[in-house]
Amino acid sequence: MKLNIAVLAGDGIGPEVIDQALKVTKAVCERFGHELNYEHGITGACAIDEVGDPYPEATHELCMQSDAVLYGAIGDPKYDNNPKATVRPEQGLLGMRKKLGLYANLRPVVSFPSLIHKSPLRTDLVDGADFMCIRELTGGIYFGDRGRKNDGNTAFDTCIYTREEVERIITLGYEYAMKRNKKLTIVDKANVLESSRLWREIGQEIAPQYPEVETEFMLVDNAAMRIIQWPKSFDVMVTENMFGDILTDEASVITGSMGMLPSASIGVHTSVFEPIHGSYPQAAGKDIANPLATVLSAAMMFEYAFDLMEEGKLIREAVDASLVAEFCTEDIAEGEAKKT
Amino acid sequence: MKLNIAVLAGDGIGPEVIDQALKVTKAVCERFGHELNYEHGITGACAIDEVGDPYPEATHELCMQSDAVLYGAIGDPKYDNNPKATVRPEQGLLGMRKKLGLYANLRPVVSFPSLIHKSPLRTDLVDGADFMCIRELTGGIYFGDRGRKNDGNTAFDTCIYTREEVERIITLGYEYAMKRNKKLTIVDKANVLESSRLWREIGQEIAPQYPEVETEFMLVDNAAMRIIQWPKSFDVMVTENMFGDILTDEASVITGSMGMLPSASIGVHTSVFEPIHGSYPQAAGKDIANPLATVLSAAMMFEYAFDLMEEGKLIREAVDASLVAEFCTEDIAEGEAKKT
Ligand SMILES: CC(C)[C@H](C(=O)O)[C@@H](O)C(=O)O
Ligand SMILES: CC(C)[C@H](C(=O)O)[C@@H](O)C(=O)O
Repeated sequence: MKLNIAVLAGDGIGPEVIDQALKVTKAVCERFGHELNYEHGITGACAIDEVGDPYPEATHELCMQSDAVLYGAIGDPKYDNNPKATVRPEQGLLGMRKKLGLYANLRPVVSFPSLIHKSPLRTDLVDGADFMCIRELTGGIYFGDRGRKNDGNTAFDTCIYTREEVERIITLGYEYAMKRNKKLTIVDKANVLESSRLWREIGQEIAPQYPEVETEFMLVDNAAMRIIQWPKSFDVMVTENMFGDILTDEASVITGSMGMLPSASIGVHTSVFEPIHGSYPQAAGKDIANPLATVLSAAMMFEYAFDLMEEGKLIREAVDASLVAEFCTEDIAEGEAKKT
Repeated sequence: MKLNIAVLAGDGIGPEVIDQALKVTKAVCERFGHELNYEHGITGACAIDEVGDPYPEATHELCMQSDAVLYGAIGDPKYDNNPKATVRPEQGLLGMRKKLGLYANLRPVVSFPSLIHKSPLRTDLVDGADFMCIRELTGGIYFGDRGRKNDGNTAFDTCIYTREEVERIITLGYEYAMKRNKKLTIVDKANVLESSRLWREIGQEIAPQYPEVETEFMLVDNAAMRIIQWPKSFDVMVTENMFGDILTDEASVITGSMGMLPSASIGVHTSVFEPIHGSYPQAAGKDIANPLATVLSAAMMFEYAFDLMEEGKLIREAVDASLVAEFCTEDIAEGEAKKT
């Protein structure tokens, strides 16, 4: 098979972790006789520095022509405390999501037995946790109208969802639930928000089409508690963009292996595979960044973008083996102080 | 002193827990020679059933004339999965918040040594945790414009904040930080939301007025992780309404004593004191509901509404003593299976 991949390394530790994931990708392609074509594109703070745009048109073209995008991380602290900056690295990420139509962000939350002692939760609560968070990624308050009024003294953002957007993502949730343990938790704030009431209505409409799936509607505040109290009660969770941002990050730390978690963003034009951790600029260049989340993102890429399940499995096994052999970075090494 | 109190018991276990808190309040008033005047008002699902309004005008009048409101809990499952219901118990709560100008919801998160084994977190992470969450309660997406377009197929909600609203709550955050350990964490999503950028700007403007306080700006997704990974890093946290809803509920479970946590909502016209747990209808009438969160809310009432610190302290000591004596409900009893 011929794999055309765009590689966007980004900022901070992005380039380092991408390097390792690329090595793995090349090795797997060699082993299975696939032809790998890849090209690098710039994005994030480094792209602002270079061309004044965090997601330049050339990078977008590259992504559009590729079957999958392997993505590092973006962000630089110099933009963090400057609310008035007009160009920010995050705009590049959001622009990419919108332009590539990356409507579904998938984040498997899985506890690694060898890392369970790193979890902030009691072992019995989290051992065996295995669920999939699906976050809507191109709608909601991230992309609605926003602005200032009243001489800049009033600020607003709009959370907006259309029926098509909600149907698409909830249906995807049911499809994944069918492939897994047949339970779908639809998270909203239907007791307050009109957009959430639309989500709940549509959930109730679609549910009967999947009679084998147990549907659970849950308020976002309740979900935030449940992720800590009873993570094993989840199978597939689906929610809107902003709630998903918060809940998926919350969920990502319960296993104690944040540096291990990959994600896939399924799109209309192509799909993007990236670690869920950030650009971690303090660690850049120190050769301490854990590349396994990016390596596992490459595994998801083989599986989700190319339907090459054997290849994905081989990568996962290699990761497991290196954990067992304790061939790993200090953030997950036995006996190390917990990183926060 | 003369204490004029409105008592809104609400739904589910509300009346039961309020009964106990009232007993304590009466006992304390007797002991200290205060004159207690209290009157009951209806609110929530039971008020819808009785008069078709979850926060009737008569109840509002009662609250306006009182120095403090002791509040139980509201909500009934019969409204949960009916997104098209036009009158919902929650509207009563939101109406009350708006009409009484309850702009600041204060939630102390404190771990009880005798209950630490109930925490879903590892003991070392949570033992000694002690922070105050301040949630803005009358602005943001809870009270902005919302509606449907396009034949009901598009739904929107608006998150809107004015400079005055943000200044008021951030200043309150600094005032509490000054009284505590002089650290304030301002939580927003300034890398995406315009309203958050207004929060961050105003935070940066006010910070220099409190040079003794260490100010930390934190993105909401990061805060959701930090609450689990390092709760002891917080002293005072302040955030907008929706983020506060999610984060305060998340924070409330880390100590394992959800049934123990009180809250105060500081208002322009009066203040409301209530347990943070819900109406828990499954438990109503079974005499198993833990009243201690409501009892501790009464303690906060003495302290915050009447500046009667001794009285508040006495209640806290009584609660601690009853925990040590294991005179408590089954949700916090030693050796019981964890409630979820
Ligand atoms: C960087 C930021 C805009 C982004 C988001 O909020 O979506 C990030 O937090 C994420 O979750 O991918
Ligand atoms: C019942 C609901 C409207 C309310 C809220 O979201 O504010 C509740 O969750 C709370 O936190 O007091």
